[in-house]
Amino acid sequence: MSLDKQITFYTSPYSPYTHRVHIALEEAKLKVNQYVIDLRPGFKPAWFAAKVNPLGLVPAFTYGGPNVPPDQPSSESAKLAESLVLLEFIADLRPDAGLLPSDPELRARARLFITLSHETLHHAFRGFFFRGERIDSILPSLEAFQALLAPSGYAVGPWSIADIVVAPMMVRFIRLAGYEIGKYPMGEGKKLLKTLAESRFARLLQYYELLWQRPSVKATWDEPLNVKMWRIHPNVTRSSSTAGH
Amino acid sequence: MSLDKQITFYTSPYSPYTHRVHIALEEAKLKVNQYVIDLRPGFKPAWFAAKVNPLGLVPAFTYGGPNVPPDQPSSESAKLAESLVLLEFIADLRPDAGLLPSDPELRARARLFITLSHETLHHAFRGFFFRGERIDSILPSLEAFQALLAPSGYAVGPWSIADIVVAPMMVRFIRLAGYEIGKYPMGEGKKLLKTLAESRFARLLQYYELLWQRPSVKATWDEPLNVKMWRIHPNVTRSSSTAGH
Repeated sequence: MSLDKQITFYTSPYSPYTHRVHIALEEAKLKVNQYVIDLRPGFKPAWFAAKVNPLGLVPAFTYGGPNVPPDQPSSESAKLAESLVLLEFIADLRPDAGLLPSDPELRARARLFITLSHETLHHAFRGFFFRGERIDSILPSLEAFQALLAPSGYAVGPWSIADIVVAPMMVRFIRLAGYEIGKYPMGEGKKLLKTLAESRFARLLQYYELLWQRPSVKATWDEPLNVKMWRIHPNVTRSSSTAGH
Repeated sequence: MSLDKQITFYTSPYSPYTHRVHIALEEAKLKVNQYVIDLRPGFKPAWFAAKVNPLGLVPAFTYGGPNVPPDQPSSESAKLAESLVLLEFIADLRPDAGLLPSDPELRARARLFITLSHETLHHAFRGFFFRGERIDSILPSLEAFQALLAPSGYAVGPWSIADIVVAPMMVRFIRLAGYEIGKYPMGEGKKLLKTLAESRFARLLQYYELLWQRPSVKATWDEPLNVKMWRIHPNVTRSSSTAGH
Protein backbone atom coordinates (compact mmCIF):
# COMPACT_ATOMS: atom_id res chain seq x y z
CA MET A 1 0.00 0.00 0.00
CA SER A 2 1.24 3.44 -0.93
CA LEU A 3 1.22 4.70 2.65
CA ASP A 4 4.26 2.60 3.40
CA LYS A 5 6.42 4.42 0.90
CA GLN A 6 8.86 7.10 2.00
CA ILE A 7 8.21 10.75 1.21
CA THR A 8 11.04 13.28 1.24
CA PHE A 9 9.76 16.85 1.18
CA TYR A 10 12.12 19.49 -0.20
CA THR A 11 11.00 22.78 1.24
CA SER A 12 11.85 26.32 2.21
CA PRO A 13 10.53 28.04 5.34
CA TYR A 14 9.59 31.27 3.52
CA SER A 15 7.71 30.19 0.43
CA PRO A 16 3.91 30.52 0.38
CA TYR A 17 3.90 27.54 -2.02
CA THR A 18 5.74 25.21 0.34
CA HIS A 19 3.53 26.58 3.14
CA ARG A 20 0.54 25.05 1.34
CA VAL A 21 2.16 21.63 1.50
CA HIS A 22 3.08 22.04 5.17
CA ILE A 23 -0.57 22.79 5.99
CA ALA A 24 -1.81 19.78 4.00
CA LEU A 25 0.68 17.43 5.68
CA GLU A 26 -0.39 18.75 9.07
CA GLU A 27 -4.07 18.21 8.23
CA ALA A 28 -3.39 14.70 6.94
CA LYS A 29 -1.05 13.84 9.83
CA LEU A 30 1.34 12.51 7.25
CA LYS A 31 4.94 12.05 8.33
CA VAL A 32 7.62 12.97 5.83
CA ASN A 33 11.37 13.58 5.81
CA GLN A 34 11.89 17.29 5.43
CA TYR A 35 14.92 18.81 3.77
CA VAL A 36 15.39 22.56 3.48
CA ILE A 37 16.72 23.85 0.17
CA ASP A 38 18.61 27.11 0.43
CA LEU A 39 17.13 29.14 -2.41
CA ARG A 40 19.64 31.97 -2.30
CA PRO A 41 21.58 32.43 -5.53
CA GLY A 42 24.82 30.53 -5.24
CA PHE A 43 23.54 28.43 -2.34
CA LYS A 44 21.03 26.18 -4.12
CA PRO A 45 22.64 22.72 -4.37
CA ALA A 46 23.24 21.53 -7.95
CA TRP A 47 21.97 18.01 -7.24
CA PHE A 48 18.49 19.37 -6.53
CA ALA A 49 17.68 20.38 -10.12
CA ALA A 50 19.70 17.46 -11.50
CA LYS A 51 18.05 14.77 -9.41
CA VAL A 52 14.77 16.03 -7.94
CA ASN A 53 13.08 18.89 -9.80
CA PRO A 54 14.50 20.02 -13.15
CA LEU A 55 12.86 23.41 -12.60
CA GLY A 56 14.85 23.79 -9.39
CA LEU A 57 11.74 24.78 -7.44
CA VAL A 58 10.29 23.84 -4.07
CA PRO A 59 7.99 22.29 -2.98
CA ALA A 60 9.06 18.90 -4.36
CA PHE A 61 8.69 15.30 -3.18
CA THR A 62 10.55 12.12 -3.76
CA TYR A 63 8.17 9.21 -3.23
CA GLY A 64 9.07 5.57 -2.76
CA GLY A 65 12.39 4.03 -3.73
CA PRO A 66 15.09 3.02 -1.24
CA ASN A 67 15.79 4.95 1.94
CA VAL A 68 18.60 7.33 1.03
CA PRO A 69 19.90 10.60 2.48
CA PRO A 70 17.81 13.51 1.11
CA ASP A 71 20.86 15.06 -0.56
CA GLN A 72 21.55 11.81 -2.42
CA PRO A 73 18.18 11.15 -4.11
CA SER A 74 17.69 7.73 -5.67
CA SER A 75 16.86 7.33 -9.35
CA GLU A 76 14.24 4.79 -8.26
CA SER A 77 11.91 7.19 -6.45
CA ALA A 78 9.11 9.12 -8.17
CA LYS A 79 9.83 12.83 -8.44
CA LEU A 80 6.77 15.02 -7.83
CA ALA A 81 6.49 18.80 -7.71
CA GLU A 82 4.16 21.82 -7.96
CA SER A 83 2.16 22.65 -4.84
CA LEU A 84 -1.29 22.03 -6.36
CA VAL A 85 -0.20 18.61 -7.59
CA LEU A 86 1.21 17.77 -4.16
CA LEU A 87 -1.99 18.86 -2.38
CA GLU A 88 -4.07 16.56 -4.60
CA PHE A 89 -1.49 13.82 -4.01
CA ILE A 90 -1.77 14.14 -0.24
CA ALA A 91 -5.58 14.14 -0.58
CA ASP A 92 -5.32 10.93 -2.63
CA LEU A 93 -2.96 9.30 -0.10
CA ARG A 94 -5.26 10.25 2.79
CA PRO A 95 -8.81 10.36 1.43
CA ASP A 96 -10.20 10.56 4.97
CA ALA A 97 -8.22 13.65 5.95
CA GLY A 98 -10.90 16.01 4.64
CA LEU A 99 -8.65 17.84 2.20
CA LEU A 100 -11.32 17.43 -0.45
CA PRO A 101 -15.03 16.86 0.19
CA SER A 102 -16.39 13.61 -1.23
CA ASP A 103 -19.17 15.32 -3.20
CA PRO A 104 -18.13 15.80 -6.86
CA GLU A 105 -19.79 19.21 -7.08
CA LEU A 106 -17.98 20.53 -4.01
CA ARG A 107 -14.69 19.12 -5.29
CA ALA A 108 -15.24 20.92 -8.58
CA ARG A 109 -16.12 24.15 -6.79
CA ALA A 110 -12.94 23.88 -4.71
CA ARG A 111 -10.81 23.38 -7.83
CA LEU A 112 -12.57 26.21 -9.67
CA PHE A 113 -11.98 28.47 -6.66
CA ILE A 114 -8.28 27.60 -6.79
CA THR A 115 -8.08 28.52 -10.47
CA LEU A 116 -9.93 31.79 -9.98
CA SER A 117 -7.91 32.69 -6.88
CA HIS A 118 -4.89 32.83 -9.14
CA GLU A 119 -6.20 35.81 -11.09
CA THR A 120 -7.45 37.59 -7.97
CA LEU A 121 -5.73 36.95 -4.63
CA HIS A 122 -2.51 35.63 -6.11
CA HIS A 123 -2.38 38.50 -8.58
CA ALA A 124 -2.85 41.01 -5.74
CA PHE A 125 -0.27 39.21 -3.61
CA ARG A 126 2.42 39.32 -6.24
CA GLY A 127 1.58 42.90 -7.15
CA PHE A 128 1.80 44.14 -3.58
CA PHE A 129 4.68 42.12 -2.18
CA PHE A 130 6.86 41.54 -5.23
CA ARG A 131 6.09 44.25 -7.78
CA GLY A 132 5.70 46.99 -5.17
CA GLU A 133 2.25 48.17 -6.24
CA ARG A 134 0.15 50.51 -4.11
CA ILE A 135 -3.03 49.24 -2.48
CA ASP A 136 -5.24 51.20 -4.90
CA SER A 137 -4.10 48.95 -7.72
CA ILE A 138 -4.64 45.70 -5.81
CA LEU A 139 -7.96 46.43 -4.05
CA PRO A 140 -10.08 45.50 -7.11
CA SER A 141 -8.38 42.07 -7.16
CA LEU A 142 -9.03 41.61 -3.44
CA GLU A 143 -12.69 42.55 -3.94
CA ALA A 144 -12.97 40.09 -6.82
CA PHE A 145 -11.40 37.42 -4.61
CA GLN A 146 -13.82 38.14 -1.79
CA ALA A 147 -16.71 37.71 -4.25
CA LEU A 148 -15.54 34.14 -4.94
CA LEU A 149 -16.01 33.11 -1.30
CA ALA A 150 -19.07 31.15 -0.21
CA PRO A 151 -21.44 33.34 1.85
CA SER A 152 -20.13 31.79 5.07
CA GLY A 153 -17.59 29.26 6.27
CA TYR A 154 -14.50 28.39 4.29
CA ALA A 155 -13.85 29.14 0.61
CA VAL A 156 -16.54 26.78 -0.71
CA GLY A 157 -18.25 26.18 2.64
CA PRO A 158 -16.54 23.11 4.10
CA TRP A 159 -12.76 23.07 4.56
CA SER A 160 -10.82 21.96 1.46
CA ILE A 161 -7.60 22.33 -0.49
CA ALA A 162 -9.06 25.61 -1.77
CA ASP A 163 -8.41 27.06 1.69
CA ILE A 164 -4.95 25.51 1.85
CA VAL A 165 -4.02 27.14 -1.44
CA VAL A 166 -4.94 30.66 -0.34
CA ALA A 167 -4.18 30.55 3.39
CA PRO A 168 -0.43 31.24 3.00
CA MET A 169 -1.19 34.40 1.00
CA MET A 170 -4.00 35.56 3.29
CA VAL A 171 -1.75 35.08 6.33
CA ARG A 172 1.10 37.02 4.73
CA PHE A 173 -1.20 39.84 3.61
CA ILE A 174 -2.64 40.43 7.05
CA ARG A 175 0.23 39.47 9.29
CA LEU A 176 3.14 41.05 7.42
CA ALA A 177 1.43 44.31 6.43
CA GLY A 178 1.75 45.69 9.96
CA TYR A 179 5.54 45.36 9.67
CA GLU A 180 5.47 47.17 6.31
CA ILE A 181 7.15 44.10 4.86
CA GLY A 182 7.13 43.70 1.08
CA LYS A 183 8.15 45.77 -1.92
CA TYR A 184 5.21 48.17 -1.69
CA PRO A 185 5.92 51.77 -0.67
CA MET A 186 6.34 52.36 3.07
CA GLY A 187 3.01 53.15 4.72
CA GLU A 188 0.92 51.09 2.30
CA GLY A 189 0.97 48.11 4.66
CA LYS A 190 -0.84 49.91 7.47
CA LYS A 191 -3.10 51.56 4.90
CA LEU A 192 -4.06 48.12 3.64
CA LEU A 193 -4.97 46.92 7.13
CA LYS A 194 -7.09 50.03 7.68
CA THR A 195 -8.90 49.53 4.37
CA LEU A 196 -9.54 45.84 5.00
CA ALA A 197 -11.17 46.83 8.30
CA GLU A 198 -13.89 48.69 6.36
CA SER A 199 -17.28 46.99 6.17
CA ARG A 200 -16.95 46.28 2.44
CA PHE A 201 -14.19 43.79 3.30
CA ALA A 202 -16.03 42.19 6.22
CA ARG A 203 -16.29 38.76 4.59
CA LEU A 204 -12.61 38.76 3.60
CA LEU A 205 -11.48 39.55 7.13
CA GLN A 206 -13.88 37.03 8.63
CA TYR A 207 -12.46 34.45 6.21
CA TYR A 208 -8.92 35.34 7.30
CA GLU A 209 -9.91 34.84 10.94
CA LEU A 210 -11.33 31.40 10.14
CA LEU A 211 -8.10 30.44 8.40
CA TRP A 212 -5.94 31.82 11.18
CA GLN A 213 -7.86 29.89 13.82
CA ARG A 214 -7.28 26.64 11.92
CA PRO A 215 -4.61 24.78 13.93
CA SER A 216 -2.81 23.53 10.81
CA VAL A 217 -2.41 27.10 9.54
CA LYS A 218 -1.16 28.56 12.80
CA ALA A 219 1.20 25.63 13.47
CA THR A 220 2.92 26.05 10.11
CA TRP A 221 3.50 29.82 10.27
CA ASP A 222 6.80 31.03 11.70
CA GLU A 223 6.30 34.77 11.88
CA PRO A 224 9.67 35.82 13.33
CA LEU A 225 11.48 33.77 10.69
CA ASN A 226 9.44 35.27 7.86
CA VAL A 227 9.95 38.79 9.14
CA LYS A 228 13.68 38.22 9.44
CA MET A 229 13.92 36.65 6.01
CA TRP A 230 12.10 39.47 4.26
CA ARG A 231 14.38 42.01 5.90
CA ILE A 232 17.59 40.23 5.01
CA HIS A 233 16.82 38.61 1.64
CA PRO A 234 13.76 40.25 0.09
CA ASN A 235 14.40 38.61 -3.28
CA VAL A 236 14.69 35.03 -2.12
CA THR A 237 11.10 34.76 -1.01
CA ARG A 238 9.92 35.07 -4.56
CA SER A 239 12.31 32.64 -6.22
CA SER A 240 10.61 29.51 -5.00
CA SER A 241 8.06 29.15 -7.80
CA THR A 242 7.75 30.70 -11.22
CA ALA A 243 4.11 30.04 -11.92
CA GLY A 244 2.69 30.10 -8.44
CA HIS A 245 2.05 26.40 -8.42
CA MET B 1 -26.86 10.35 -6.26
CA SER B 2 -25.07 12.96 -8.31
CA LEU B 3 -25.34 10.99 -11.53
CA ASP B 4 -29.03 11.78 -11.69
CA LYS B 5 -28.47 15.51 -11.93
CA GLN B 6 -28.67 17.29 -15.25
CA ILE B 7 -25.53 18.63 -16.91
CA THR B 8 -25.75 21.35 -19.55
CA PHE B 9 -22.49 21.74 -21.44
CA TYR B 10 -21.84 25.13 -23.04
CA THR B 11 -19.36 24.55 -25.82
CA SER B 12 -17.89 25.68 -29.11
CA PRO B 13 -16.89 23.30 -31.90
CA TYR B 14 -13.51 24.97 -32.50
CA SER B 15 -11.95 25.40 -29.10
CA PRO B 16 -9.18 23.00 -28.03
CA TYR B 17 -10.37 23.58 -24.43
CA THR B 18 -13.94 22.45 -25.08
CA HIS B 19 -12.47 19.58 -27.14
CA ARG B 20 -10.89 18.27 -23.93
CA VAL B 21 -14.32 18.08 -22.31
CA HIS B 22 -15.88 16.39 -25.35
CA ILE B 23 -13.21 13.68 -25.19
CA ALA B 24 -13.74 13.15 -21.46
CA LEU B 25 -17.52 12.91 -21.85
CA GLU B 26 -17.05 10.39 -24.66
CA GLU B 27 -14.69 8.31 -22.51
CA ALA B 28 -17.07 8.42 -19.56
CA LYS B 29 -20.15 7.76 -21.72
CA LEU B 30 -21.77 10.64 -19.89
CA LYS B 31 -24.85 12.16 -21.50
CA VAL B 32 -25.19 15.92 -21.31
CA ASN B 33 -27.25 18.65 -22.92
CA GLN B 34 -25.01 20.50 -25.31
CA TYR B 35 -25.48 24.14 -26.19
CA VAL B 36 -23.18 25.92 -28.62
CA ILE B 37 -22.12 29.44 -27.69
CA ASP B 38 -21.29 31.65 -30.65
CA LEU B 39 -18.01 33.22 -29.58
CA ARG B 40 -17.82 35.78 -32.39
CA PRO B 41 -17.73 39.37 -31.14
CA GLY B 42 -21.28 40.69 -31.15
CA PHE B 43 -22.79 37.22 -31.28
CA LYS B 44 -22.02 35.97 -27.76
CA PRO B 45 -25.31 36.01 -25.83
CA ALA B 46 -25.33 38.38 -22.84
CA TRP B 47 -27.06 35.86 -20.57
CA PHE B 48 -24.07 33.54 -20.81
CA ALA B 49 -21.68 35.72 -18.79
CA ALA B 50 -24.52 36.99 -16.60
CA LYS B 51 -25.91 33.58 -15.67
CA VAL B 52 -23.36 30.85 -16.44
CA ASN B 53 -19.71 31.93 -16.51
CA PRO B 54 -18.79 35.49 -15.48
CA LEU B 55 -15.62 35.18 -17.55
CA GLY B 56 -17.75 34.49 -20.62
CA LEU B 57 -15.66 31.47 -21.55
CA VAL B 58 -16.44 27.97 -22.72
CA PRO B 59 -16.30 25.18 -21.67
CA ALA B 60 -18.81 25.65 -18.85
CA PHE B 61 -21.36 23.40 -17.14
CA THR B 62 -24.55 23.96 -15.25
CA TYR B 63 -25.06 21.02 -12.90
CA GLY B 64 -28.26 20.09 -11.10
CA GLY B 65 -31.19 22.42 -10.53
CA PRO B 66 -34.48 22.22 -12.41
CA ASN B 67 -34.72 21.24 -16.06
CA VAL B 68 -34.69 24.52 -17.96
CA PRO B 69 -33.85 25.54 -21.53
CA PRO B 70 -30.06 26.03 -21.85
CA ASP B 71 -30.51 29.70 -22.77
CA GLN B 72 -32.51 30.30 -19.57
CA PRO B 73 -30.17 28.94 -16.90
CA SER B 74 -31.61 28.47 -13.43
CA SER B 75 -30.13 30.23 -10.42
CA GLU B 76 -30.43 26.90 -8.60
CA SER B 77 -27.87 24.97 -10.63
CA ALA B 78 -24.14 24.89 -9.83
CA LYS B 79 -22.04 26.80 -12.34
CA LEU B 80 -18.76 25.10 -13.19
CA ALA B 81 -16.07 26.11 -15.67
CA GLU B 82 -12.41 25.74 -16.74
CA SER B 83 -11.56 22.64 -18.73
CA LEU B 84 -9.17 21.13 -16.15
CA VAL B 85 -11.78 21.52 -13.42
CA LEU B 86 -14.41 19.88 -15.63
CA LEU B 87 -12.13 16.94 -16.49
CA GLU B 88 -11.56 16.24 -12.80
CA PHE B 89 -15.30 16.64 -12.23
CA ILE B 90 -16.14 14.06 -14.90
CA ALA B 91 -13.50 11.75 -13.41
CA ASP B 92 -15.13 12.18 -9.99
CA LEU B 93 -18.62 11.52 -11.40
CA ARG B 94 -17.43 8.40 -13.20
CA PRO B 95 -14.53 6.96 -11.18
CA ASP B 96 -14.65 3.75 -13.22
CA ALA B 97 -14.22 5.48 -16.60
CA GLY B 98 -10.42 5.36 -16.40
CA LEU B 99 -9.89 9.11 -16.70
CA LEU B 100 -7.52 8.93 -13.77
CA PRO B 101 -5.63 5.84 -12.60
CA SER B 102 -6.42 4.76 -9.04
CA ASP B 103 -2.79 4.79 -7.94
CA PRO B 104 -1.95 8.07 -6.14
CA GLU B 105 1.51 8.26 -7.69
CA LEU B 106 0.18 7.90 -11.24
CA ARG B 107 -2.54 10.45 -10.53
CA ALA B 108 0.12 12.88 -9.31
CA ARG B 109 2.27 12.21 -12.36
CA ALA B 110 -0.72 12.87 -14.64
CA ARG B 111 -1.42 16.18 -12.91
CA LEU B 112 2.25 17.18 -12.97
CA PHE B 113 2.36 16.34 -16.68
CA ILE B 114 -0.64 18.62 -17.25
CA THR B 115 1.05 21.50 -15.44
CA LEU B 116 4.31 21.04 -17.32
CA SER B 117 2.54 20.64 -20.68
CA HIS B 118 1.37 24.21 -20.24
CA GLU B 119 4.89 25.63 -20.47
CA THR B 120 5.88 23.34 -23.33
CA LEU B 121 3.19 22.06 -25.72
CA HIS B 122 0.66 24.75 -24.92
CA HIS B 123 3.31 27.43 -25.19
CA ALA B 124 4.36 26.10 -28.62
CA PHE B 125 0.74 25.79 -29.72
CA ARG B 126 -0.11 29.38 -28.90
CA GLY B 127 3.14 30.64 -30.38
CA PHE B 128 2.65 28.83 -33.67
CA PHE B 129 -1.08 29.14 -34.23
CA PHE B 130 -1.91 32.41 -32.51
CA ARG B 131 1.25 34.51 -32.34
CA GLY B 132 2.47 33.44 -35.78
CA GLU B 133 5.91 32.26 -34.69
CA ARG B 134 8.19 30.22 -36.98
CA ILE B 135 8.93 26.59 -36.17
CA ASP B 136 12.51 27.38 -35.12
CA SER B 137 11.17 29.25 -32.12
CA ILE B 138 8.73 26.52 -31.06
CA LEU B 139 10.84 23.38 -31.62
CA PRO B 140 12.63 23.68 -28.25
CA SER B 141 9.23 23.69 -26.52
CA LEU B 142 8.12 20.64 -28.49
CA GLU B 143 11.34 18.84 -27.59
CA ALA B 144 10.82 19.72 -23.92
CA PHE B 145 7.28 18.42 -24.17
CA GLN B 146 8.45 15.16 -25.73
CA ALA B 147 10.89 14.71 -22.85
CA LEU B 148 7.96 14.75 -20.41
CA LEU B 149 6.38 11.67 -22.01
CA ALA B 150 6.74 8.24 -20.43
CA PRO B 151 9.10 6.03 -22.50
CA SER B 152 6.13 4.26 -24.07
CA GLY B 153 2.35 4.31 -24.05
CA TYR B 154 0.38 7.38 -23.14
CA ALA B 155 1.64 10.50 -21.38
CA VAL B 156 2.30 8.79 -18.05
CA GLY B 157 1.93 5.21 -19.33
CA PRO B 158 -1.75 4.36 -18.86
CA TRP B 159 -4.45 6.58 -20.41
CA SER B 160 -5.45 9.54 -18.22
CA ILE B 161 -6.70 13.11 -18.22
CA ALA B 162 -3.11 14.09 -19.04
CA ASP B 163 -3.73 12.74 -22.55
CA ILE B 164 -7.11 14.41 -22.76
CA VAL B 165 -5.55 17.77 -21.95
CA VAL B 166 -2.94 17.62 -24.70
CA ALA B 167 -4.77 15.60 -27.39
CA PRO B 168 -6.66 18.62 -28.82
CA MET B 169 -3.41 20.50 -29.31
CA MET B 170 -1.50 17.50 -30.68
CA VAL B 171 -4.31 16.82 -33.16
CA ARG B 172 -4.40 20.44 -34.31
CA PHE B 173 -0.61 20.61 -34.66
CA ILE B 174 -0.39 17.57 -36.90
CA ARG B 175 -3.68 17.66 -38.73
CA LEU B 176 -3.94 21.39 -39.46
CA ALA B 177 -0.30 22.02 -40.39
CA GLY B 178 -0.74 20.37 -43.79
CA TYR B 179 -3.41 22.96 -44.63
CA GLU B 180 -1.03 25.75 -43.54
CA ILE B 181 -3.72 26.80 -41.08
CA GLY B 182 -2.73 29.16 -38.27
CA LYS B 183 -1.04 32.53 -37.98
CA TYR B 184 2.47 31.20 -38.74
CA PRO B 185 4.06 32.25 -42.07
CA MET B 186 2.93 30.23 -45.09
CA GLY B 187 5.12 27.18 -45.61
CA GLU B 188 5.94 26.70 -41.93
CA GLY B 189 3.13 24.16 -41.57
CA LYS B 190 4.62 21.69 -44.03
CA LYS B 191 8.08 22.45 -42.66
CA LEU B 192 6.83 21.47 -39.21
CA LEU B 193 5.47 18.13 -40.45
CA LYS B 194 8.78 17.41 -42.20
CA THR B 195 10.73 18.24 -39.04
CA LEU B 196 8.50 16.14 -36.80
CA ALA B 197 9.16 13.19 -39.13
CA GLU B 198 12.85 13.28 -38.16
CA SER B 199 14.03 10.57 -35.80
CA ARG B 200 14.59 13.02 -32.93
CA PHE B 201 10.80 13.46 -32.77
CA ALA B 202 9.97 9.74 -33.07
CA ARG B 203 8.40 9.51 -29.62
CA LEU B 204 6.29 12.62 -30.17
CA LEU B 205 4.87 11.30 -33.45
CA GLN B 206 4.28 7.85 -31.99
CA TYR B 207 2.42 9.52 -29.14
CA TYR B 208 0.31 11.48 -31.61
CA GLU B 209 -0.58 8.24 -33.41
CA LEU B 210 -1.66 6.65 -30.13
CA LEU B 211 -3.88 9.65 -29.39
CA TRP B 212 -5.31 9.72 -32.90
CA GLN B 213 -6.20 6.03 -32.77
CA ARG B 214 -8.13 6.57 -29.54
CA PRO B 215 -11.82 6.39 -30.53
CA SER B 216 -12.83 9.24 -28.22
CA VAL B 217 -10.29 11.55 -29.83
CA LYS B 218 -11.22 10.73 -33.41
CA ALA B 219 -14.96 10.86 -32.71
CA THR B 220 -14.73 14.38 -31.28
CA TRP B 221 -12.63 15.94 -34.07
CA ASP B 222 -14.49 17.60 -36.93
CA GLU B 223 -11.72 18.42 -39.36
CA PRO B 224 -13.76 20.08 -42.15
CA LEU B 225 -15.46 22.32 -39.63
CA ASN B 226 -12.16 23.33 -38.01
CA VAL B 227 -10.56 24.04 -41.38
CA LYS B 228 -13.52 26.14 -42.44
CA MET B 229 -13.60 28.03 -39.16
CA TRP B 230 -9.92 28.91 -39.25
CA ARG B 231 -10.26 30.23 -42.79
CA ILE B 232 -13.31 32.37 -42.05
CA HIS B 233 -12.76 33.52 -38.45
CA PRO B 234 -9.11 33.04 -37.49
CA ASN B 235 -9.52 35.16 -34.36
CA VAL B 236 -12.50 33.36 -32.85
CA THR B 237 -10.66 30.12 -32.22
CA ARG B 238 -8.47 31.82 -29.67
CA SER B 239 -11.13 33.69 -27.75
CA SER B 240 -12.51 30.71 -25.92
CA SER B 241 -10.14 30.71 -22.97
CA THR B 242 -7.79 33.30 -21.57
CA ALA B 243 -5.56 31.14 -19.49
CA GLY B 244 -5.72 27.91 -21.39
CA HIS B 245 -7.77 26.21 -18.72
